[in-house]
Amino acid sequence: MADNKSIARPGTRRDFLAAFAALTGSMLVGLPTRLRAEPASAGPADPHLIEDLVAANRILAAESVVDGYGHVSVRHDKDPNRYLIARSVAPELVTAADILELDLDSNAVDLRERKMYLERFIHGEIYKARPDVKSVVHHHSAAVIPFGVSGVPLRPIYHMAAFIGLGVPVFEIRDVAGMTDLLVKTPELGKALARTLGDKPAALMRGHGAVVVGESLAMAVGRSIYLQMDARLQAQAMALGDHVTYLEPGEVEKLRGLDSYDRAWELWKRKVAGAMK
Amino acid sequence: MADNKSIARPGTRRDFLAAFAALTGSMLVGLPTRLRAEPASAGPADPHLIEDLVAANRILAAESVVDGYGHVSVRHDKDPNRYLIARSVAPELVTAADILELDLDSNAVDLRERKMYLERFIHGEIYKARPDVKSVVHHHSAAVIPFGVSGVPLRPIYHMAAFIGLGVPVFEIRDVAGMTDLLVKTPELGKALARTLGDKPAALMRGHGAVVVGESLAMAVGRSIYLQMDARLQAQAMALGDHVTYLEPGEVEKLRGLDSYDRAWELWKRKVAGAMK
Amino acid sequence: MADNKSIARPGTRRDFLAAFAALTGSMLVGLPTRLRAEPASAGPADPHLIEDLVAANRILAAESVVDGYGHVSVRHDKDPNRYLIARSVAPELVTAADILELDLDSNAVDLRERKMYLERFIHGEIYKARPDVKSVVHHHSAAVIPFGVSGVPLRPIYHMAAFIGLGVPVFEIRDVAGMTDLLVKTPELGKALARTLGDKPAALMRGHGAVVVGESLAMAVGRSIYLQMDARLQAQAMALGDHVTYLEPGEVEKLRGLDSYDRAWELWKRKVAGAMK
Amino acid sequence: MADNKSIARPGTRRDFLAAFAALTGSMLVGLPTRLRAEPASAGPADPHLIEDLVAANRILAAESVVDGYGHVSVRHDKDPNRYLIARSVAPELVTAADILELDLDSNAVDLRERKMYLERFIHGEIYKARPDVKSVVHHHSAAVIPFGVSGVPLRPIYHMAAFIGLGVPVFEIRDVAGMTDLLVKTPELGKALARTLGDKPAALMRGHGAVVVGESLAMAVGRSIYLQMDARLQAQAMALGDHVTYLEPGEVEKLRGLDSYDRAWELWKRKVAGAMK
Repeated sequence: MADNKSIARPGTRRDFLAAFAALTGSMLVGLPTRLRAEPASAGPADPHLIEDLVAANRILAAESVVDGYGHVSVRHDKDPNRYLIARSVAPELVTAADILELDLDSNAVDLRERKMYLERFIHGEIYKARPDVKSVVHHHSAAVIPFGVSGVPLRPIYHMAAFIGLGVPVFEIRDVAGMTDLLVKTPELGKALARTLGDKPAALMRGHGAVVVGESLAMAVGRSIYLQMDARLQAQAMALGDHVTYLEPGEVEKLRGLDSYDRAWELWKRKVAGAMK
Repeated sequence: MADNKSIARPGTRRDFLAAFAALTGSMLVGLPTRLRAEPASAGPADPHLIEDLVAANRILAAESVVDGYGHVSVRHDKDPNRYLIARSVAPELVTAADILELDLDSNAVDLRERKMYLERFIHGEIYKARPDVKSVVHHHSAAVIPFGVSGVPLRPIYHMAAFIGLGVPVFEIRDVAGMTDLLVKTPELGKALARTLGDKPAALMRGHGAVVVGESLAMAVGRSIYLQMDARLQAQAMALGDHVTYLEPGEVEKLRGLDSYDRAWELWKRKVAGAMK
Repeated sequence: MADNKSIARPGTRRDFLAAFAALTGSMLVGLPTRLRAEPASAGPADPHLIEDLVAANRILAAESVVDGYGHVSVRHDKDPNRYLIARSVAPELVTAADILELDLDSNAVDLRERKMYLERFIHGEIYKARPDVKSVVHHHSAAVIPFGVSGVPLRPIYHMAAFIGLGVPVFEIRDVAGMTDLLVKTPELGKALARTLGDKPAALMRGHGAVVVGESLAMAVGRSIYLQMDARLQAQAMALGDHVTYLEPGEVEKLRGLDSYDRAWELWKRKVAGAMK
Repeated sequence: MADNKSIARPGTRRDFLAAFAALTGSMLVGLPTRLRAEPASAGPADPHLIEDLVAANRILAAESVVDGYGHVSVRHDKDPNRYLIARSVAPELVTAADILELDLDSNAVDLRERKMYLERFIHGEIYKARPDVKSVVHHHSAAVIPFGVSGVPLRPIYHMAAFIGLGVPVFEIRDVAGMTDLLVKTPELGKALARTLGDKPAALMRGHGAVVVGESLAMAVGRSIYLQMDARLQAQAMALGDHVTYLEPGEVEKLRGLDSYDRAWELWKRKVAGAMK
């Protein structure tokens, strides 16, 4: 079991299968899913974590951070080399039965007939690159997208979004892959996005959306909601006048780690609880 | 039956009636509906198609693409020379019982006492000109109208609205008919609009709204929703700064055909399902 | 009974009471309501009209034209010298039991302990000056107010709001009364507002809101909703660029009388029907 | 009992405890709450006042003045040296059981295991400085924040927000405490904020939010809602053109004291009544 959890342990059966898959991947495309190599499970995740992940999906929809598209994941509580994410379905419709376990190469443990998000590599590659990250959100928030295409950097307008002061880089997929459909649908593109993200709390994706990370589901969801709010406020403040006072680095530093969003998380969960039954 | 489906088959009873109608149309205006020539039915449409058309009406209302006005149609599954559209009623109130079958001249098969949309010619004339089109939406989306009157072209800001990169021309009704009430309420105006639309996915109508087409109901509805969203995002991005990066033609090309909006359609249908009962 | 309906018929008991009231009005301010002269009733109004008036109140709230303030009235169907309006209560809470009958001097027929809107003179004085008007709405719509204070005239952006092309003057209360609390709370101020309105469909009130009139409840309500929508669209279009194409007078003329808003009225009524029970 | 209500009466057991607490405060941080000195209760507050305070929390959430954060308090009806405020919980979730009684140093009378808002000193210090104030709201309203960071003063656009004409100063926490996390989480910061507020109805807090006061819950809540609305309207009016006509001081003076918001309060309470059960 432990062997199966290792990403880079040489000499195991999984390594062999991975190598085999790399060689024969294109041949396997047409084969039924059950014939492909699937990673082993890390065991059942904490049911409360699953419940929170389902709630996170619905909260992001309720707050208009996601519409029919976008996704949120959480690292498996029993194994840092696994993460949990819904099958390909609109976030507002996600139930516990839709949650899949994936390894960090974004292969599902037990896919059966289900379809995965094309852009799951966003999640897997960030979990690889950022051991501190426990949750990842990818979204197309309407307020955020204009900043990704205008060259105007997002800046922290108020204490609720102080984390923006740590930096929100913009991922330009043209720089790494030229003309594409903008989807982060390969491990390589996922790695490139993770490199742009670096050690920051979020990155914008030009012409596409954003990715937001956190040390917990509540933090990744809360940062997503306040990234969106800050974008709205910054646009309004810029429209009012030329001299906007943003948070200073000293203020951002004092607020570091205070964005657990516990009080709001309790509210958000309660508001989607009825719909989850 | 087959004869009845043909638009231009000479020598049939329908041709005779059409010619008769063309000659006597103005005389018939004051006559009771049952005395006029009505085209024959192509037979009952697939109940799932009807259900989807009802859902499309309600989805467009739920997403604020339409208010009390606007309409959506779908080509008949049994006959490309017929289309289905509601009687004259607000989209949010449409039920299966309101769906009419019309021929491509926009005459109803079985109108009885019901009123038709004045602007049904938008649909019929586009179905004539565009065999690839299976669904047409006409709406007055608030976000879109400012682009139709300002001379600022709509451009694709993000991948969800890449189809805009194929071109969204503006229909200026003054160019074809001078001072009007702006309504596309004659076959001639419908044809003029279809000419402006050309082979594009959508056209704006100056001082009025827009028309959006697709290869399926989901595509026409999805494009309507993301046309609206793109208009909002573009207005916001333009307000932020002068240098907005839109999708490049190469990106638009890579995204061509990817706008089936399947995942969102599942969500949208579920959200209006309760109200449809 | 007929006598009582006449405003200016000499020699009746009502004339005497009106003269008496004019002489002693200020003395009566402190007296209990039941001691004051009350006009006679024109008889019970059509229950469908009452129902529509209650619906109009709730529709205006549902469409965010009014919040806790604002009011809508309709001319009595049995007597053009009476109108119906709610007692002083938020529009969203109005029920049939709240509807009062007022004469055109805005005195209630049967007030009992109920409080009247301070600004009811807006309604009474417009009904006096405009025999064509059957319904009056006064509101503080958020989209409209910026136009009243900025000197930028509201103009018709699309066919749904073509009536704006007939003219929407701005009432500046300072011109007639200097520094006030901006409330139209006397007959004189009501008359001044009616003079500014003239024969137009609506007038803005600087620093306050707007008044909208129509030949029916549906028209006054519909014009209120599309005045608001046009204001939003015009602000957006102006932000996009300097060259906005508004409806031409010829187009406005072609659309004159087409703003009965019947199809939308059916929808709006259905949407508030549940809440009215 | 009376002794316990006094803030500054020397020689009592409370004074001794306060001095003891001042000396040993840091030592007590780790101790269980029940061992700390707690002020005595002023007795049970009027249940209607508690009900109104719960309603105020939910109204502010329903009107989007607060989200998961922000708080509202009311002065105790039996003792001006006590105020009522919820334990640390999102306003939308507050019930009567969450209401705590605090003295004006913002110590809870009967805290038990419950957590207090970190920024309760906003309330306590304003109640000390402003005997006329009966209710205080602290919020992060999205419409208001851009004014706090842009140097553009909020001005009264319409009669519903005339109180803004009395002045809305901006609190810059950097001026009193340099680089902070922006939270008013000490008595000193609360006093500094109260000084900036002075005798005004509201103050903006740069990079944070606002504080609004009133002679009643309805007034503090109503002013919060119309502060937000005025901010939206002013931003829109400024975007339309350079010459905005604001209320004149003479108009503000005529409207002074008319902002009790009684009619709206009845509506707002009714709208949250269902959720409060």
